[in-house]
Amino acid sequence: MSREPLQALIIIDMQNDFVLPDGAVCVAGAAATVPRISRLLSHFRQHKRPVFHVIREYRADGSDVDGFRKESFASGKTFVVPGTSGCEIVEPLQPTADEYRLVKPRFSAFMQTPLDMLLRRLAIPELVVCGTQYPNCIRATVLDAVSLDYQVTLVTDATSAQTTEIAAANIVDIANIGVTCLTTEHFVSE
Amino acid sequence: MSREPLQALIIIDMQNDFVLPDGAVCVAGAAATVPRISRLLSHFRQHKRPVFHVIREYRADGSDVDGFRKESFASGKTFVVPGTSGCEIVEPLQPTADEYRLVKPRFSAFMQTPLDMLLRRLAIPELVVCGTQYPNCIRATVLDAVSLDYQVTLVTDATSAQTTEIAAANIVDIANIGVTCLTTEHFVSE
Repeated sequence: MSREPLQALIIIDMQNDFVLPDGAVCVAGAAATVPRISRLLSHFRQHKRPVFHVIREYRADGSDVDGFRKESFASGKTFVVPGTSGCEIVEPLQPTADEYRLVKPRFSAFMQTPLDMLLRRLAIPELVVCGTQYPNCIRATVLDAVSLDYQVTLVTDATSAQTTEIAAANIVDIANIGVTCLTTEHFVSE
Repeated sequence: MSREPLQALIIIDMQNDFVLPDGAVCVAGAAATVPRISRLLSHFRQHKRPVFHVIREYRADGSDVDGFRKESFASGKTFVVPGTSGCEIVEPLQPTADEYRLVKPRFSAFMQTPLDMLLRRLAIPELVVCGTQYPNCIRATVLDAVSLDYQVTLVTDATSAQTTEIAAANIVDIANIGVTCLTTEHFVSE
């Protein structure tokens, strides 16, 4: 069965600082998801469906960071600063020139970004979400996507958290608001 | 020690349909929180600090409901419809004339409401959040409040979920983004 054509892939925060084991603020589960996100990316490219790489960038002076990260930046522990390698999207998931690369200043991919406007322009009703990390950027993005009336699929093993318990608890809550939760294998073989 | 003056209390979705045991979509833990929210409310009234009652309303025809609730409304299971008793705020927590009563169309108290504008006008830097339910409206509101640079306190035993496990998992994630998580007793005695 082929899937509906009007899906977009939303890959969140798969940057070196969040993903690599020696990244400044490594999410423990993120590195393991790279091959699965890569598979999703190939699938969307093959089917010529739009891909959005939504990432973080912070100023080195910390003036634009989330409140709970101010201390980290003040003490010199900075991350995802443009121009540093930590800010780059991990090598296997680098965007092509025709894909969208959006910077989100806060958790949700929708907050203060043109994501909703772009999706409406493309007439995309369904979002396929993956990336890191479950409790913050993934959760906020999914809550906003559902609120804005998108159909949402979360690819569970292409999404990560610091612990499997946190991931599992978030999946329960997310499934309870009508989000389809599938593995990568299940998604690409549908 | 007296608290900083610039706090607002945000009470979410404490309406009969969500709270009463025979409510149309009762949240199991909600009724038990009414006395504690009542205590918070008295505390804020006594200290003349602003209170926001943020609630849901849906059209009986279901044309404005969240996507995952369309089927419920289509099958005749409606709730929080203005004019019905289920839509009313539970009796012990009814707003006074000088408190704010805002209708939120989706999970977050900030989405498509004037809450942020009103808080800025009042120069309120800190929000004290309670109500129901943890994984959806509370979580979305807290994520947005942190994103918008508010200091946030969550009153854990004045906030509810369908199960204690869901509540506990949400508190872990919420505490991890710099939100102060306190009991009612702890909060009012500070």
